[in-house]
Amino acid sequence: MHLVEATEACTGCGLCVRACSPGCLALEDERPRAVRAEACILCGHCVAVCPVDALRHRDLDPAGFAPLRPEAVPSPEAFREFLHWRRSVRLYRDDPVPRSLVEALLEAARYAPTATNAQNVQFLVVDDRAFIHDLARLTVDCFRKLLGQLRNPLVRAILTPAVGKEVARRALEEVPDFQRLVDRWRAGKDPIFHNAPVLLVAHAEKADYFGRDNCLFATYNVMLEAVTRGLGTCLIGYFIVAWDRDRRVREALGLPEGQRAYAACTLGYPAVRYHKAVPRRPVAVAWRPERGSPGGAGGA
Amino acid sequence: MHLVEATEACTGCGLCVRACSPGCLALEDERPRAVRAEACILCGHCVAVCPVDALRHRDLDPAGFAPLRPEAVPSPEAFREFLHWRRSVRLYRDDPVPRSLVEALLEAARYAPTATNAQNVQFLVVDDRAFIHDLARLTVDCFRKLLGQLRNPLVRAILTPAVGKEVARRALEEVPDFQRLVDRWRAGKDPIFHNAPVLLVAHAEKADYFGRDNCLFATYNVMLEAVTRGLGTCLIGYFIVAWDRDRRVREALGLPEGQRAYAACTLGYPAVRYHKAVPRRPVAVAWRPERGSPGGAGGA
Repeated sequence: MHLVEATEACTGCGLCVRACSPGCLALEDERPRAVRAEACILCGHCVAVCPVDALRHRDLDPAGFAPLRPEAVPSPEAFREFLHWRRSVRLYRDDPVPRSLVEALLEAARYAPTATNAQNVQFLVVDDRAFIHDLARLTVDCFRKLLGQLRNPLVRAILTPAVGKEVARRALEEVPDFQRLVDRWRAGKDPIFHNAPVLLVAHAEKADYFGRDNCLFATYNVMLEAVTRGLGTCLIGYFIVAWDRDRRVREALGLPEGQRAYAACTLGYPAVRYHKAVPRRPVAVAWRPERGSPGGAGGA
Repeated sequence: MHLVEATEACTGCGLCVRACSPGCLALEDERPRAVRAEACILCGHCVAVCPVDALRHRDLDPAGFAPLRPEAVPSPEAFREFLHWRRSVRLYRDDPVPRSLVEALLEAARYAPTATNAQNVQFLVVDDRAFIHDLARLTVDCFRKLLGQLRNPLVRAILTPAVGKEVARRALEEVPDFQRLVDRWRAGKDPIFHNAPVLLVAHAEKADYFGRDNCLFATYNVMLEAVTRGLGTCLIGYFIVAWDRDRRVREALGLPEGQRAYAACTLGYPAVRYHKAVPRRPVAVAWRPERGSPGGAGGA
């Protein structure tokens, strides 16, 4: 079989050719033919766009093309209300989350966008409390060392020339926050993973320019799906910082060679119920052309 | 008013204290009091978690706390089906998108997670076709230059020592793709923004460690909400690469000083209808403890 084949139902409308963004297809005798098969990114748009279901793709299972039902799309209001449910949950019940349920959640990650449709995000799931506790300890240790550096007069003297004024200012601003982290750990709390029963780490190849992006979108799909299953999640930036900075953290987590951790997310059953959405600031938006300029659309 | 105040309805249950992850609150005489007000990140969890609606926060508008209605949460199946609708749309109708509609979409960005609840994502919206065309030309130019470099024997000789084997291998693998980009531009197509009527660029402070993450989540909320309004979107990685690499691209886009572009996304009315979801590979998942190990949950 060639890259694509059209059945007799094909009307030669050419939509598949138009929908193929890498330009793999062309119409010949009113039928789609692969003229640049090597550029195919397996996006499947050619098959999905066909109004008479006449196209087959050599490398894509026909059973994977589920019908898109318009009733599956929520109203804008319903979607917005759903978004309000996603919040950073930092209080979890002790109950473990069954692995089958975690696997079901991770299915949502498949449908996140990836650059050039690479679909190369991987997840490491840690559901052992002792191991999560070890990772928290190493993360706190990393911030304890960082605190020591930020308080060292020699380091402070070279900080601005080394990383720039803004980054230096921000790092110094974080000092009280890092100190609270260390204090809370000493007081027997887990200020990193909040005693969550499960930790998800999304990782991708270091060499992938969009590895971070791919991991974040995939993780976010999982976070939204978690809401639909009564589970809570929280992104753990501290752990990503520690993974980036500290060899001991990397060795403990033990990702495969050449992989980098881009998103860490706790998962568990929320211990408390939130009754309300929270207010958020409006997003800052600028327009080109600017509002009120000759080319601008004004208040349209 | 102090950071928080409890009305007479307060039962002293302490949930607000538990829900405050920076540890700003403590119970005194069975009422919440701010003991570390300076650490507040305005997450609003204290107010949202109160079962008797007894708490007010000094810096958060009570009207912003909308009730969370359970019926706003879709079933896992409905949510998954909705995710299938989000795809990379690269065929747009010519119709402009009203600015009021773009603004409504961008509202969804407010409810994306941001590290330490910074809510610092900004959007630049370009809805002038001539300007978008200029940005496409500059982006293609950037890749044309990159192609020249990747084909230069001197550059090729130092590529691996400069960027590492994997990055070098990938860059060389991209050569045919970059060449197609240049060829299609010469043939009068827009292989960057696909003639979309609107370009969204999410940006944040360069000095923000999680600026990229915050921009990506915000953009993804907008992309999902676009589906609910019959609009299509596509992430444009090429433009982000060009923004990162090329001063002329940065100058043309003209973000405010100290800001960095992290996500670019086209927006418009799809020119074609997709009838089906597309198959995606399963996500690779590893477990700690490993499956079948003494501590592992096995196939649970």
